[in-house]
Amino acid sequence: MSTETVPPSSAEDLPATAPAATPGAAADARVETRAGYRAPVVDVAALTTFLDGKYAEVRGLVRRNLADYDSILEEAETLSRDDFRDRVRDVVVEMATTGQTGMGFPTEYGGGGDIGASVAAFETLAYGDLSVLVKVGVQFGLFGGAILQLGTQEHHDAYLADLITGKLMGCFAMTETGHGSNVQALGTVATYDVETQEFVLTTHGEAARKDYIGNAARHAEVAVVFAQLEVGGTSEGVHAFVVPIRAGGEPCAGVHIEDDGAKMGLNGVDNGRLSFDGVRIPRTALLNRFADVTPAGVYESAIENPNKRFFTMLGTLVQGRVCVGGAGINASKVALTIATKYALQRRQFEATSEDEEELLLDYGLHQRRLFPLLARTYALHCAQEVVAGQLHDVFSGFADDEHARRELESRAAGTKALGTWHATRTIQECREACGGAGYLAINRFTALKADTDVFTTFEGDNHVLLQLVAKGLLTDYSSEFEEMDQFGLVRFVAGMAVETVIEKTNVHKLVERFKDLLPGGDQWDQEAGLLDPDYQLAMLRFREEHMLAGVARRLKRGIDNKMNPGVVFSRVQDHVIAAARAHVERLVLEAFVEKVATLPDGDLKVALNLLCDLHALSTIEADRAWFMEHGRLTVQRSKSISREINSLCRKIRPLAEDLVDGFDVPVEMLRSPDLIRH
Amino acid sequence: MSTETVPPSSAEDLPATAPAATPGAAADARVETRAGYRAPVVDVAALTTFLDGKYAEVRGLVRRNLADYDSILEEAETLSRDDFRDRVRDVVVEMATTGQTGMGFPTEYGGGGDIGASVAAFETLAYGDLSVLVKVGVQFGLFGGAILQLGTQEHHDAYLADLITGKLMGCFAMTETGHGSNVQALGTVATYDVETQEFVLTTHGEAARKDYIGNAARHAEVAVVFAQLEVGGTSEGVHAFVVPIRAGGEPCAGVHIEDDGAKMGLNGVDNGRLSFDGVRIPRTALLNRFADVTPAGVYESAIENPNKRFFTMLGTLVQGRVCVGGAGINASKVALTIATKYALQRRQFEATSEDEEELLLDYGLHQRRLFPLLARTYALHCAQEVVAGQLHDVFSGFADDEHARRELESRAAGTKALGTWHATRTIQECREACGGAGYLAINRFTALKADTDVFTTFEGDNHVLLQLVAKGLLTDYSSEFEEMDQFGLVRFVAGMAVETVIEKTNVHKLVERFKDLLPGGDQWDQEAGLLDPDYQLAMLRFREEHMLAGVARRLKRGIDNKMNPGVVFSRVQDHVIAAARAHVERLVLEAFVEKVATLPDGDLKVALNLLCDLHALSTIEADRAWFMEHGRLTVQRSKSISREINSLCRKIRPLAEDLVDGFDVPVEMLRSPDLIRH
Repeated sequence: MSTETVPPSSAEDLPATAPAATPGAAADARVETRAGYRAPVVDVAALTTFLDGKYAEVRGLVRRNLADYDSILEEAETLSRDDFRDRVRDVVVEMATTGQTGMGFPTEYGGGGDIGASVAAFETLAYGDLSVLVKVGVQFGLFGGAILQLGTQEHHDAYLADLITGKLMGCFAMTETGHGSNVQALGTVATYDVETQEFVLTTHGEAARKDYIGNAARHAEVAVVFAQLEVGGTSEGVHAFVVPIRAGGEPCAGVHIEDDGAKMGLNGVDNGRLSFDGVRIPRTALLNRFADVTPAGVYESAIENPNKRFFTMLGTLVQGRVCVGGAGINASKVALTIATKYALQRRQFEATSEDEEELLLDYGLHQRRLFPLLARTYALHCAQEVVAGQLHDVFSGFADDEHARRELESRAAGTKALGTWHATRTIQECREACGGAGYLAINRFTALKADTDVFTTFEGDNHVLLQLVAKGLLTDYSSEFEEMDQFGLVRFVAGMAVETVIEKTNVHKLVERFKDLLPGGDQWDQEAGLLDPDYQLAMLRFREEHMLAGVARRLKRGIDNKMNPGVVFSRVQDHVIAAARAHVERLVLEAFVEKVATLPDGDLKVALNLLCDLHALSTIEADRAWFMEHGRLTVQRSKSISREINSLCRKIRPLAEDLVDGFDVPVEMLRSPDLIRH
Repeated sequence: MSTETVPPSSAEDLPATAPAATPGAAADARVETRAGYRAPVVDVAALTTFLDGKYAEVRGLVRRNLADYDSILEEAETLSRDDFRDRVRDVVVEMATTGQTGMGFPTEYGGGGDIGASVAAFETLAYGDLSVLVKVGVQFGLFGGAILQLGTQEHHDAYLADLITGKLMGCFAMTETGHGSNVQALGTVATYDVETQEFVLTTHGEAARKDYIGNAARHAEVAVVFAQLEVGGTSEGVHAFVVPIRAGGEPCAGVHIEDDGAKMGLNGVDNGRLSFDGVRIPRTALLNRFADVTPAGVYESAIENPNKRFFTMLGTLVQGRVCVGGAGINASKVALTIATKYALQRRQFEATSEDEEELLLDYGLHQRRLFPLLARTYALHCAQEVVAGQLHDVFSGFADDEHARRELESRAAGTKALGTWHATRTIQECREACGGAGYLAINRFTALKADTDVFTTFEGDNHVLLQLVAKGLLTDYSSEFEEMDQFGLVRFVAGMAVETVIEKTNVHKLVERFKDLLPGGDQWDQEAGLLDPDYQLAMLRFREEHMLAGVARRLKRGIDNKMNPGVVFSRVQDHVIAAARAHVERLVLEAFVEKVATLPDGDLKVALNLLCDLHALSTIEADRAWFMEHGRLTVQRSKSISREINSLCRKIRPLAEDLVDGFDVPVEMLRSPDLIRH
């Protein structure tokens, strides 16, 4: 723990203009500093308890397992690809014996019966080797999740116990070479043969082969295959089937398996391609929770609308998205821990003293590079806790209505997108902040970068996910679009629904609502303290609402002008993405503010409020052009925000090591023998 | 070649507000579009000729060599690390026989006698495997360059002929574990022993060991070692010595060699660590172009000031920096070629048609993601041509004065920083734009990402380089600071010089100069056409001057307030970096504008002007908050710029494939069998 204090008075910022015009809380902070600001003392153990939340025990179990299997980090570099794949499989199966990977399954099959715990376990696993993480995700999340969520009792009885132990390895065969984002257009076909009461699976052409399927190239015996169901000559849309693909190490008859080969990272996961040449599976192989085919060949479903049926099925698989977001956030913690500790021991150039070179972390620029990312990691951690909690509530039946599911799906999409982009950015910045040393594999960034890179793509391409978020926002104004295609605003705009939606959105009413967003009236935001969370949140809410109205207005204008809806969408797409992002940014800040508010007054709260302010102001600063363009930020105030950020960075400087220690990344997972003091 | 036209009228942008307020050329462009804008027809061969410039022949040779050795791309994935290192060495030595790698050396030793040609050859090599590139850089650029530039006739006679053929492999041992950026503080010591007329090389402690040294772990027989020279008990600063380190595959006596092991990328280069335990080398091993020690132990140098001497030595090695910047830019071209071609064959979601899914490149967001990066690649290509030309002129003796050298060093630093950051960003965006397919190693992004990652660090950390640029800008106002430490504004601020400099900078005069930057008077920029290059350049010039004055003002205020100069620097550091970046951005745009202006009127010029406008406006847009904060951009005009960028993207869309084909990346270097049409 640190007890340093920030130097007073002379440690002030150096505004280019006289500070007289600086408004609100920024000026207050300056007075406070002059009066002798005392840095809070961070109780690291209490901080970890705070971050771990209700699943501290589960997270502790995973941390211990990671330490027990720490050799995997080196094995990722030294073993051949096949050997490493097998080693990862073995580690996953061994970890399964500790209960860590089965938390989310029903207890009657050997699971833990706690969905929230399963997410917490998965997230924590992201401190270690990410092939292990993804292998766990494939086996227990995707494959196991599909059996659990799309199957019925018969499937549960047949598969769950064995897949929870890892005795039965499986894969999740949705994506095809030709279709990743637009999964409604998959090309694999399953035709019902009423004579034999079987489905016949066929891959029509290379674009329809299953691709990038984890566990497929080497280990899986069974696949959950998504295919267009054809019954009696009618296409009923995409459904899932359990298909044996490998027995005794050899592909089953009619199943062709190819290896996807070397990947950028995650080479401990055996991604492969599957194609089916008239493969026959029994009628009961259809995962029939939402739809079934009778022996006589009659298609039945309680959900009448095919679109709604498809997206109801997909919606049950949202856990994967929640998990990947959390994994990205936790991978960022590893990178930040290493980079921060390195900057606290690495010195370069004499600056404040002639006798000793300066610590990297005492350079203002270095603080500016790392601390906003640190603050954002905390913010995303809190947002992740919210979405994981919602997932738990919905799937445990505590809050399982249509609205809750839609909100969960939107939040999961948004948090995943922001969390994984954050990982890419943070790991990159941390690598650069560690210089050439950061380039050596032993110092972790190699694996972190390579392994997390695809997080922005799998479980939904981030841009497509943000479009899903935007669609949800636009349709929130109208309940009759529930059944709409969730996987792209494209078809939403292209479809006949667009004009109606836009009418309902009622642009003018929306604009009126803006004023209500500013608690102290229209000019209040020009006077409010920069460190007032109400102000910070009001700014993000205003942006969100304004951007959304802008999107609606642009869509409407395009349609009114009789433009092709696809062209309209293409033109407005950057606004669509920006509006969705603004929405998620608001949710993230809210989560952070609310979580910190639960703390009792004291040093820990003071410390986390510094981070919360830094995150909020950094978020506003990053888009300050927009706020100025929309009259919510004067030039003076915009500059004050930048100064306040520098001031916050200096206050966080003495707390930095404690703030990364609070993540409690097992020391074995940091490696970096030459970068940090062990 | 494409002859598509952009759809008229209905293809207009969708401004949120009425277009009446749109000023200048944006309105003109709209009229032009309404009148039926015709997309230019790009002659790809002419475009390649234009880009290749005066070294087309050399670039052609390298392209052919790359195609001949294309198996190296796959070998990078399949061979063991040691085998791949040896293979890369073999390829480099074989390529050397074509003359490709020796272009920069004097003809009397078997070189090509053309420095510009050597840079062109190196840049082009970046289309292929980057271990080969870096091995070439180490052997011929760093090692060979040090012998050539720091040595004298005797060293040239002894080493050049053999190193040009690759018979003698060498390394460049400057960086130490403890010092990378601040190389004046290196810890290795070379003590002159007058008795034996030898230097004794010693590594004092682990921080002083040479680290990350390419060619050291396996292949080099000789190292150029940078060490603190001690003569008669006096330290004379860092000098370079030729040191045998390996004979018959074994380390020489007293030389300890370690392997740096697995790295994120560039695993065909054998980076290692060297330490010296009283290693004795003859007096003539000192590379004595700028300083010498007489047999009797008298230190002599024509350059009296030790700082100036050191930086004169370092300055002769600037070619490495120029080369790395060019390599980053060319690696970006490979990524953009693949991502653009993929987006021209990959379809996802029905948008404009119900029968066929939309090409990725027809989505507005996809254009926004790729085209500004494409435009910036062209801009940086032009900037690189300028700095490579300056390098050629200075080192060929055409323009070798102090001022030209300082300008070259600043430009090399700035272009390297922007070019390599651009590579990191572009390759990442292109990978994401290729989705999961981009994650497979066969599709090139794996190697591009991993191998280029360290470009932002080696040959000078980018932030440190931008500080060097800033220092040059601040001291341009005063000639008496030539001898100052070039490797960090830190010591510049910490030293006694700072107040004098700031007085000389004369803030008020600087501010007066701003108005002169606006050709049509103080308000001219509010009326000028957005597509007028004079306007675009004036904006960037204004920003540069204003930021620089701001830095000077802040430094002065801090010193006036009696703050510790190191603290002042730390507080102003983000402004320092921003000012340097603004300067380099202006140089880049100027280079692009000037290069396009050399073209005769016609379709190619029209096409490149679209890219030039897109680059200029994207650059302004990215920092539009700053321009608004400083009164150079109204809200309306800022929004117009964003609309104009979208409009330019749509005009570039039909030209996109031709514009990447113009880079002429050999098809063998693209691989990506499933991503692009071959």
